Parts: sequence; structure tokens; C-alpha cells
Amino acid sequence: MEDHELDRDAQTGMPPEPRTDDDPFAVPRASETVLAALAAGLREGTVSTASPRYFGHFTTAPSEIALRASAIATEANPQLATRSHAQFAVDVEDLTVRALASRFGYAPATADGTFTSGGAEANAMALALALARAFPEIAQRGLRALAGDPVLYVSNEGHATAARAARLAGLGSDGVRIVPVDRKLRMKPGALGEAIARDRARGAIPFLVVATAGATSAGTIDPIPEIAAIAERAGLWLHLDAAWGGLAAFVPELASVLEGSARADSITFDPHKTLAVPLGAGMLLTRHPRALASAFHEQAGYMPRDASRDPYARSTMWSRRFIGAPTYAVLASLGWSGVAEMLARQVALGDRLRRALGERGWSVVNDTPLPVVCFVDATHEDGARPDRLAAIAREVDARGAGWITLVRFSSGTRVLRACVTSPNTREQDIDALVDSLDSSRKAVFSRSAAP
Amino acid sequence: MEDHELDRDAQTGMPPEPRTDDDPFAVPRASETVLAALAAGLREGTVSTASPRYFGHFTTAPSEIALRASAIATEANPQLATRSHAQFAVDVEDLTVRALASRFGYAPATADGTFTSGGAEANAMALALALARAFPEIAQRGLRALAGDPVLYVSNEGHATAARAARLAGLGSDGVRIVPVDRKLRMKPGALGEAIARDRARGAIPFLVVATAGATSAGTIDPIPEIAAIAERAGLWLHLDAAWGGLAAFVPELASVLEGSARADSITFDPHKTLAVPLGAGMLLTRHPRALASAFHEQAGYMPRDASRDPYARSTMWSRRFIGAPTYAVLASLGWSGVAEMLARQVALGDRLRRALGERGWSVVNDTPLPVVCFVDATHEDGARPDRLAAIAREVDARGAGWITLVRFSSGTRVLRACVTSPNTREQDIDALVDSLDSSRKAVFSRSAAP
Repeated sequence: MEDHELDRDAQTGMPPEPRTDDDPFAVPRASETVLAALAAGLREGTVSTASPRYFGHFTTAPSEIALRASAIATEANPQLATRSHAQFAVDVEDLTVRALASRFGYAPATADGTFTSGGAEANAMALALALARAFPEIAQRGLRALAGDPVLYVSNEGHATAARAARLAGLGSDGVRIVPVDRKLRMKPGALGEAIARDRARGAIPFLVVATAGATSAGTIDPIPEIAAIAERAGLWLHLDAAWGGLAAFVPELASVLEGSARADSITFDPHKTLAVPLGAGMLLTRHPRALASAFHEQAGYMPRDASRDPYARSTMWSRRFIGAPTYAVLASLGWSGVAEMLARQVALGDRLRRALGERGWSVVNDTPLPVVCFVDATHEDGARPDRLAAIAREVDARGAGWITLVRFSSGTRVLRACVTSPNTREQDIDALVDSLDSSRKAVFSRSAAP
Repeated sequence: MEDHELDRDAQTGMPPEPRTDDDPFAVPRASETVLAALAAGLREGTVSTASPRYFGHFTTAPSEIALRASAIATEANPQLATRSHAQFAVDVEDLTVRALASRFGYAPATADGTFTSGGAEANAMALALALARAFPEIAQRGLRALAGDPVLYVSNEGHATAARAARLAGLGSDGVRIVPVDRKLRMKPGALGEAIARDRARGAIPFLVVATAGATSAGTIDPIPEIAAIAERAGLWLHLDAAWGGLAAFVPELASVLEGSARADSITFDPHKTLAVPLGAGMLLTRHPRALASAFHEQAGYMPRDASRDPYARSTMWSRRFIGAPTYAVLASLGWSGVAEMLARQVALGDRLRRALGERGWSVVNDTPLPVVCFVDATHEDGARPDRLAAIAREVDARGAGWITLVRFSSGTRVLRACVTSPNTREQDIDALVDSLDSSRKAVFSRSAAP
């Protein structure tokens, strides 16, 4: 999980304009004034995810075509709750879902899925699919009718949305088994197997394993084939949280790192992290064509003639915007080859960053082929101190060379982290970051050495 | 709940362009081609919510300023997961939330809330707030640790998202008590009180009442003060689903119909239904300032210095787009007076429609001050037959006079339904609809009378 301690104050927040707490809407204001204030506020009071020097969270810079597609969709304002009401938009989303699913190895004929507001919703939906499959009776009778406690498994580097989803689904944190990771921060399959056995022995009911591809902190990828084998043997739903790491599915050189993804029963993938589209565009994919309808179809109300394909009956949302438009437009204009090229460039920049950091005496402490690099300073005895690292990040930001974060691994270790997540990042941005890290380090340590 | 049986085929769906199921992204295409296809597809393959003659679901036509604000926010692409990362956007949303909450009678000092993808998410969040307050122990131990079955109450005209949320929260449909309605389709407070007593007597644990303001089918408003009194006496969380009917809070002439709204513990309100902003912009409001953080704060992960105000810790979403931007812009540019004027015009058009229908021999069968009108034909003995009504709606659509729906009340009665939900609708649109209903009725009945 990401550590947000770098609450740097470079961001100014509210500009002069609407800072009236009493009644900001008492007096109408000219549209141009309002829009100018909005634009200025966003410029000044936001960490710019559009910058090629944004190395922060996994948020991409929207491409021109994505912004234009988004504007077209927003202006048309189709209401995607039902298929018949917005046939074109629903068709486009279906087609995009199936095409993306096939990149993860799902068979197009049975692949299914839906766009979501982001990875959190997709992960929560996966939990609902797994519960509905394992315990069909809870749709009517609820969790309290079960003979034992449902339990899911996720590594301690997995995203906290799995735990939150479990809590909101009524399982409580007691229903979440945190599986330890190895030295490379990957879930230990042996520990997973043991945890399942232990839970069964005490009468609990394992039902879901969440594997992570591209953990938020270190970008590590759980050993999918081994985990899939365990889940299959135990008859558990396997969910792959590939919200960011799913990018590997588009880069031929990296395809092997997602080996086994097609064995997952469902997959989270976030176009807004990797496909140059604006927030929020997440996805849930599944290889079980009727799973969505059986988990989300509301049985209490009146049904359309065949609601099993209506978006409202296959999602947690009801009224729905055309989330998939920019993702479709990016894929259609780039084609798979263009997507591969865009992402391969980011992967190469990640490698360049790793190499350059090593050459300058930083110690890279994570192990992933994905473009996220975690590191501490190896040139100084205090080079791994969190306060020093945070000061370095602030200094790099102040010098305009990039926005990076301080994260904490589940072990408690804190490290600096830089990811390449913008299609606009170039070699000179990486080089500027490394140069600035170097000089920022010197500045911080000379300050701290001063009497 | 709405009946979607009017799956009219005027919508063409996918245009020629991307109808290749095998691999739509095999070959890159020119951006202009892709965007043109998207625009054309949306024009041809969508029920146009932007049309002044869209009388369908509660989806508004986005105003110019809303579209521009949306574009500005999308291009800046702030990531609202944490406050420090997008200070300006989070401040704007906070300010908008508090200002809107005050229209429902909440005290600005304690009012709280968040933007959501829509009413479904807001209703599900309200359920989570109510559960967290009634059963703090479930955060850790889950629903199965409780001494009895949690039960919530909603009328049979309430929105099906309440029932779905209950199912996804692990309560099952058995945990949802459907309270009957009176002749005016409003929840019967007496029946609610009896249901609560009955559940308690059998050892279940009532925890939530969902009152509806502006039911989807008939626009009716539950008797809020009576329901509030019962909920207060029983110590239950009261949620007011005012997703659409919340518009009354902005129209001085209608303020009385929401009397008691400030007694609700939480309120759903959808700007995308009433405030001329594009999908999806919902809101959850509450008068309990710490409720969101205690329901959604993920306790398992590492915390920022004070996450209790960070959006990710107060919502079901994690990565977040700047949902509130267009709502803020509309309110800032119109001011309360402009909003009141816009909505009062729609209310007046609803009255005009009711009057005109009555004069032309239609029978208006719902009773609400809100601009949604349900009616059947009173001039013909088959004038209430669903197939005839559906045929009339299709005919009206084909003649270009408007898009209206066929809905089913919980009693089983089916009626035609027209709502005024677009700020662009004018008197001539209403008159054209009524004229066309008249001639369409004649055409349908002359066809059906033919040998």
C-alpha cells in the first residue's frame, strides 16, 4: 500500500475565488469567471498527473484522442443503464471488454466483463462474483445462513481495496487472510496452501484468492501459475488484481510475466493507469459469461425482457456514463502494435531509471520487470532513513525534476518510489530525475550535517 | 422500478465501422476516423438524453458550462484519492457537498458527504454507514458474529438499488423488508412501525429505513416526518433516497414537500438527474461528520497522517476522478436563484403536461408535485392495456415528438410515464408531446380496430 506521507505543500488548494464557506452559491457568477477559476485552481492546486515528470501514483496522462473521445461521450451523455437505451455505447464497451479480455488469454466467446469507476469497484465486484458462485444461497438468506465463515486470501502487498471490499461485504477483517510474501515481496504459494488447510480444519470456508500483478508499492507480481494451481485444487475463485501490472499483457517482451492469467476467474485492469485515458476507467473481466448477471441482477424488481445483458444488471452501478469511450478510442487509433510500443517505451524507461540509479550509488530494492523503481541511498549511512528520503523527494519536487513518493513495504521498510506511468515521459525526463536525485541528496545531507 | 419493456428499435447500435467481433484493434486507424465513428454512433445509436423531447428516465441534458467544466477537469485529470494530491479539486467538492447539504436542512458545520458515480453507489454507501453505526463489531468480525439478523425497510416503490445493496452487503433479500404503499404509492408509516415491531419480536435487528423522495415510477414522496418519527423512536438510521426528488430542495415553492429531510441521517442526491450535469454524478450526504471515515476507512493498510479527510478513506472508490467539477460550475454560475428558476420551469412544465393530458381525455394516475406524469388513456375501453400504451409510446417516438416510457407500479398496473428532466424543454415541447399522444392514440386504435 502506498504511503501518503509525502503531503507536500507545493499544492496550494483553493485559489482566492471560491473560498467562502458560508454560501458559495449565493450570487451567480459569469461562466467565464467560474471556468477560469476552475482551470487556474486545477493548474495550481493539483499534482499534475499529465506531466512527463509525474512519477507518483499509477495515474496516466490522458492522450489527445482520449480527451476528445471523452468530450464526445460526455456531450452525448448516453445513459448506459439499459442496452436498448444506449445500444451503440454498450456495444462499444462490450467489444472493448472482449478484446481486452483476449489479451489476458480469455477465450473471446466466453469472455465477459464491464467497465468500472476504477480498480476498487472492480475488486469489490470480483469479491461479489466469488461469493455468489461459492454461496448461491446468500442472495436470499445472507451470510448468516452459511455453515461456516467465508475466508479470502491476499498477500500483504496486495491492495487494501480487497480488505475493504471484504469488510463492506459483511465478512469483516477476520474474513481476510493476509498471506506473507517472500523476499521479492511475492505471495508465498506454500503459505497460501497452508492457510487454506488451516482455515478448513477449523471449519471456515475458503472461497477466494486474490493474486496481485503489479503491487502498488513495489510492482511485484505474485507467482500466478503456482497460486492458480492451489486455487484450482482447492476449488476457489481466483481473482487477479492486475490494475496496473496488466500492462504486461500488451507488451510482447513481458507476456511471460502474466503467464497463467487466463486461469484467473476474474481480472481487474485499469485503463486509467496504463492506456492513456483519464480517470476513472477501471474494468472487471471474467471468463464466466453468466457470473456478472448472477451476482448483480436485482431479482426484486421488474425485469426487462432479457436483462442479463443490461449493464445495470451486471454491475454495481445503475445509471452509467459511457466510461469505455476513451479506452476504445485509444485502442482503435493505436491498434495493438501502437499500444505495445507506447508501453514498451515506458518499460524501457523504467530499466533506464534502474540502471542509472545503480550507477549513481542508489540501491534499487524491488524486483519487477514493470516500470516502477523502489530505492534508497546507498552512499550514506543515513541513506535509508525515511525522513531523509522524504526530504529528498521534496527537494526533487521543488527543483521541478519530478514528483515521486515514499512508500512502505509490508515489512515496514520505507523507500523512495518512482514509476513511469505517462506516455509523455522521455529519456531526458528520466535523466533529469536521476540528476536531481543526486543533487537533492547532496543538498539534504549537507543541510543535515550542518551544525 | 422502471419497466424497460420499451426496448424500441429506433436505436441502431453499432454503426458499420467497428462491427468486427474478432479483433477490432488489429489495425491502427486514423484518430479522426475513430472519433467521427464514435460521434456518429452516439448520434444514431442512442436515445438522446440531450433532447428537449427526452421524457424518459431521470437523466438531464448537460448544460454548456457543465460540459466545459467537465472537459477542464478531465484534461487536468486530478487524482482525488488523497487530499494532498489534488487539494483544489477536493476543496471544491467539499464546498459543493456542504452547500448542497445545507439545502436539505443539514447544518453546514456538521454536514458531510461525497460525490459518487450515481445513486446506486450512494444508496449502497448509506447502507454501509447504517451498518457501521448499528454494528461496529462487523468491521472486524463480520455479519455472522451478530446476535440477530439485520433488517432494513424500503417501500415497494423504492429503488431496487436498496435491495441490491443489501444483497451485496451480505444481508440477502431476506434482510430487506418491503413496506407496502398507500393509494398514492407512498410508504405506509403504520405498516413500517408494525414491521419493525414484528421483526424485533422474532429476534431480528432493524437498523435502517430507506424513505424515497421522488420514486422512479411515479415520483411520489414518502411521508418523511412520519417515517422520521418512527425511525427516531426505534433508533434506526434513516436514509432518504432523493436521487431525483431532491430537486424540490432548490425550488422555494416545493420546499415543503421535503419537510423533515434534515432528520434523515443520510441523503442520496444525483446532480446528473437534476442539475444539468453529465453522467455520472451522484452524491451521498450525511449529517454525521465522522460516519464516512468510520465506514470506509481501510484499517488494514498504512495510514497517511490524517486520512479521515482523504477521499479514498471516505468512499467506496479509491482512485477518483473530479466528479464534482461540473456540479460546482453549474451552481456557481447559476447561483441558487438560477437553479430555482431552472427547476421551477420544469415543475411548471410538468403541471402543464398534467393539465393538458386531463383536457385531452387521458387519466393522470400519479400524485406528485414533481414533474413526472403517469397516465393511461381514458377515452377508450382498452386505453389502459399495456400493449396499446407501448404502441402509443413507440408511435410518439417515431413521430419525433418525444421519448416516453412504460412503467409498472408495484401494484402491477402499467402506465405511460413522461418526466421533464431537461433544462432545455419548453412549452412547445410539452404541447407537441400532447398533440402527438393524441394522434398516436388514434393511429394505434384505428390500426387495432382494423379487421
